[in-house]
Formats: sequence, structure tokens, C-alpha cells
Amino acid sequence: MGFFSKDIKNMDDLFLHTLRDIYYAEKQIVQALPEMIEKSSDPQLKQGFQSHLRETENHVKRLERVFQLQGQDAKGVECPAIDGIIDEANEVAGEVEDKNVLDAALIAAAQAVEHYEITRYGSLIAWAKQLGRQDCATLLQQNLDEEKAADRKLTAMAESNVNRKAA
Amino acid sequence: MGFFSKDIKNMDDLFLHTLRDIYYAEKQIVQALPEMIEKSSDPQLKQGFQSHLRETENHVKRLERVFQLQGQDAKGVECPAIDGIIDEANEVAGEVEDKNVLDAALIAAAQAVEHYEITRYGSLIAWAKQLGRQDCATLLQQNLDEEKAADRKLTAMAESNVNRKAA
Repeated sequence: MGFFSKDIKNMDDLFLHTLRDIYYAEKQIVQALPEMIEKSSDPQLKQGFQSHLRETENHVKRLERVFQLQGQDAKGVECPAIDGIIDEANEVAGEVEDKNVLDAALIAAAQAVEHYEITRYGSLIAWAKQLGRQDCATLLQQNLDEEKAADRKLTAMAESNVNRKAA
Repeated sequence: MGFFSKDIKNMDDLFLHTLRDIYYAEKQIVQALPEMIEKSSDPQLKQGFQSHLRETENHVKRLERVFQLQGQDAKGVECPAIDGIIDEANEVAGEVEDKNVLDAALIAAAQAVEHYEITRYGSLIAWAKQLGRQDCATLLQQNLDEEKAADRKLTAMAESNVNRKAA
């Protein structure tokens, strides 16, 4: 994790560590989305992934502004959680032949990614507020709102046509 | 993942695969919670983890009933996502000395676990309904409701005393 023994001494350190974690995660997602766009068949799903890729690129930039506000260089720390989520998505997608079943699997994989981001942003926002950094909290909240909106759209797709076609 | 090439042929296969994934995850969480109980200091947090351990043991049993309803033996598949989430929780916790900061880190780690379960149960319930398996959906919904309640309790703790003490 780039830290030596007991290197998180206070809440500022925990905040910075988790900021680096989500920064790494967002950058991994930017790399993973093009393959999900390519693998998806439903036009609405494909378009949803495309627009989320643009949002995610913007999330990376917003995080860079948070680093700047903290007087820190933007850098990631390895995040076994998002690596595991993306590995699992690739493994499952590799097992599916039928394009409608693959769409359902891709939606589930994308929602696992969204929920990871939602939980990390939730923690970061709570900590930023308690550290008196409303400026950072506001930027992080913008990312969180877009992740939640993306998750809601995926739920609507999961519950409507994509899954019905697959069943 | 225990699957050979293109082994998920239809939605029933995807449902069963994901059921095995969450079954493995719930069992890993049963193993991880005692350490989180031991590491936590805040009495409310410690008690929350203890009561969630009992709930999680019950989730495993409910999943075994879903396997039974599907005419399948209960078994897990390796789940890189939950392994990554738990590894990351252990790594971060290992970096923290201050007990209040450690509590904040443990809450964040537990919320990452909850959100992983919330997303998997959400997908499974949508698929069970579309496959006409309301009996399975009802059992999975009971687990989901408890995960969501656990997450809400953790959010309330994150936003109140535990974090304030740490800052």
C-alpha cells in the first residue's frame, strides 16, 4: 500500500490514504470501461457505459483538485479491492457466450464497481467534513452523486429489458 | 471460478454462479468479523460487529436454503472481489495505531463489505424474479434488508462519535 509500519497516524493520513485508493480505482475503471463498452450488446447499455467513461475521466480530474487542495501530489496506492472486482468481472464475462446473458453479467459487474466507489466516497465525505474540509467534501460529493445516478440507471436496466431478454 | 470455457450458458447459470460467489463471500466475512470485533474499541461499534456476525451466520443458512430450492448443493466459488476487499481492510488496519482512527478505518472497511453484498444481492433478486423464482427472491431480500440496515448503522456511526473522536 506504499506505507511502512503504522504509517497512518491520524485522520488526515487515513483521508489521504483513502483518497489515493479511490484515485487508483477511478483510473483502473477508465482502463476497464472500453472493454465493457465493446462487450455489451444492448444499445442503451453500451451508451450508458460510454457516457460513464466520460464521467469517470472527469472524476479523476476532480480527485486531482482534491489532492491539490490538500497540498499533495496526486498519486494512487494499489487497491486490491477494485483489482479483485475488475478481475472477477473479466473472469465471469469470459464464461458467457450468449450476448443477452453477457449484458446481464456486465450490468452486475458495473454495479459492483459503482458500489465500491459509493462506499469509498461516502467515507471520504464524512471524514472531510469532520476535518473541516468542506471544499474537498463538495468535490467528492459531485463524484458520489454521479456514481449513485449511474448505479440507479444500471438497476433500472437490470430490472427491465436486458434481463428479460436474457431469461 | 470453477468454470471451464464459456460455462455460463443462460440466466440460470449466471444466477447459480453469483449465488456461489456470495456464498463464498458470506463465509469469508464470518471468518473476518472476529478480528474486526477484536480490533475495534468503541463499544457501540464492537457490539454492532458482534450482532452482524450473528446475522452473517444466518445469511449463510438462508443461502443454503436458496441452493436447496434450486436443487443444488451449497458450494462457493472463489471470489477475488471479496478477497480483495478483506485484504485491503487488513492492510489498512495494520497501518493504524491510534484506536479512534482504527475504528474509523474499520467502519469504512465494513461498509465496503456491506456494499459488495448489497450489489450482489440486488442482482440476484432481480434475476430470481425474472426467472420466476419468487421463493428464492424472498430469502435473498431478507439478507439484503439486513445488509442495508447494517450499512445504515455504520454510516450513522461514521458521521457521529467515532470519527469526531478520531479527528
